Amino acid sequence: MSRLVRTGISLDSELLARFDRAIARKGYGSRSEAIRDLVRDQSVASDVAAGRVIVGTLTLVYDHHQPTLAQRLIEAQHHYHGKVLAVTHIHLDHRNCLEVIIVKGRSAEVQKLADQLLSLRGVKHGKLVMTTTGRRLR
Amino acid sequence: MSRLVRTGISLDSELLARFDRAIARKGYGSRSEAIRDLVRDQSVASDVAAGRVIVGTLTLVYDHHQPTLAQRLIEAQHHYHGKVLAVTHIHLDHRNCLEVIIVKGRSAEVQKLADQLLSLRGVKHGKLVMTTTGRRLR
Amino acid sequence: MSRLVRTGISLDSELLARFDRAIARKGYGSRSEAIRDLVRDQSVASDVAAGRVIVGTLTLVYDHHQPTLAQRLIEAQHHYHGKVLAVTHIHLDHRNCLEVIIVKGRSAEVQKLADQLLSLRGVKHGKLVMTTTGRRLR
Amino acid sequence: MSRLVRTGISLDSELLARFDRAIARKGYGSRSEAIRDLVRDQSVASDVAAGRVIVGTLTLVYDHHQPTLAQRLIEAQHHYHGKVLAVTHIHLDHRNCLEVIIVKGRSAEVQKLADQLLSLRGVKHGKLVMTTTGRRLR
Repeated sequence: MSRLVRTGISLDSELLARFDRAIARKGYGSRSEAIRDLVRDQSVASDVAAGRVIVGTLTLVYDHHQPTLAQRLIEAQHHYHGKVLAVTHIHLDHRNCLEVIIVKGRSAEVQKLADQLLSLRGVKHGKLVMTTTGRRLR
Repeated sequence: MSRLVRTGISLDSELLARFDRAIARKGYGSRSEAIRDLVRDQSVASDVAAGRVIVGTLTLVYDHHQPTLAQRLIEAQHHYHGKVLAVTHIHLDHRNCLEVIIVKGRSAEVQKLADQLLSLRGVKHGKLVMTTTGRRLR
Repeated sequence: MSRLVRTGISLDSELLARFDRAIARKGYGSRSEAIRDLVRDQSVASDVAAGRVIVGTLTLVYDHHQPTLAQRLIEAQHHYHGKVLAVTHIHLDHRNCLEVIIVKGRSAEVQKLADQLLSLRGVKHGKLVMTTTGRRLR
Repeated sequence: MSRLVRTGISLDSELLARFDRAIARKGYGSRSEAIRDLVRDQSVASDVAAGRVIVGTLTLVYDHHQPTLAQRLIEAQHHYHGKVLAVTHIHLDHRNCLEVIIVKGRSAEVQKLADQLLSLRGVKHGKLVMTTTGRRLR
């Protein structure tokens, strides 16, 4: 059963003072929350490396004048073995589209889908981030 | 006026053969498209470093049981100087929410908004990616 | 005056258990040391971003058959405004040299020197890391 | 047999103009060399991911007042399965030492050695970069 525990760490007073200033600038309300975030970030990185199920957000910018691109984007998503949770589409201007595709799956599968979509002709730029499903992370 | 031009590069035959194999694995249809992507990626990185207007996708995972968090997420977005283009919300499970916030603004402003949201108590994990508005990138 | 202080953090028991397993794999002797490293890493990143004096290690691999390259590497280092602390040279094989250049200076100057050396014809690959001078980091 | 070949790429004139300005700032003498560097960088990343033999430079900053640290650094290097090519040591000030350890080995082994050394008590900060042995990269 998961519960809140307390642990003590010892560190140099000047290092701690610098850390406190840095996290105040970022808007953290407490030192505990800032350290939790560092610990959680390492935990997510290890889930990704271990090939666990994660959530990925793939951001693509493409030119919708490119013939057959929209079709190929949809087909690739349908062949994806994980699960596409949602797609948000923004008309950036008369040529440029932004598409944000949120997927859930094993990290290697998500990476493969990203590689496939990013390599399509007409996709100008894109980036993938991977985060937690939340289940293993408090 | 923007138009398609051709440029030649010389490189070692073995290096080129390895590159061709790598891009085939990723699904590229042509060498030209793969090299264009490398060039575009550098261009976007330089826009971000120069503080230009970019599009950012911020992915957050949070526990909606955290009191006042939803309220604070909304308020921060309303105080943001750039433009929130869209927000997509996914109910990951009974506790965990995924929120993907798409914003447009100068890179430093977008980073500041991300820092602010990521530091909120109850936000378990999150990541920001920055990409192009498409306008300066063909 | 700098001294060792103790601070308490509260976090979820499962998150802590995962962290303990991860740091044991990496060889950490204590949780305190592992958390200190996360805090120090953020501190160094902020020194780099703020343009402070840092130590940089630039690793270059180059082909010494490239005419005038060795000469140009030396000249660039002599024009560098910071301080070159040491250069280690390894003969990787009959063609390939590895050169590791350790410099001290403001982060922007160190980056500029790295850009200059990495762009020289004959330099096959290279990477720069920036770390602390140790003075501001306990 | 490896030899120089020429390949043509087509890309947008404005994108190319931006690329030319960016590489001029970095000091590149030719567009070909700049594109070769992008291609090589991808090639090295794929060697690292594939677990091939690479060269790693590990930069450590530590406090030599920490008892037994110097001894433990040496022991870990002796137990390393790859090959330590050279170690450069700099006395940064009366407390702080910089140690740059150049190793050759499979990427996973090099990473493991780095994890082990970075986790030692008294090591304040450190970073690993991986590059090519030069053999597979022209």
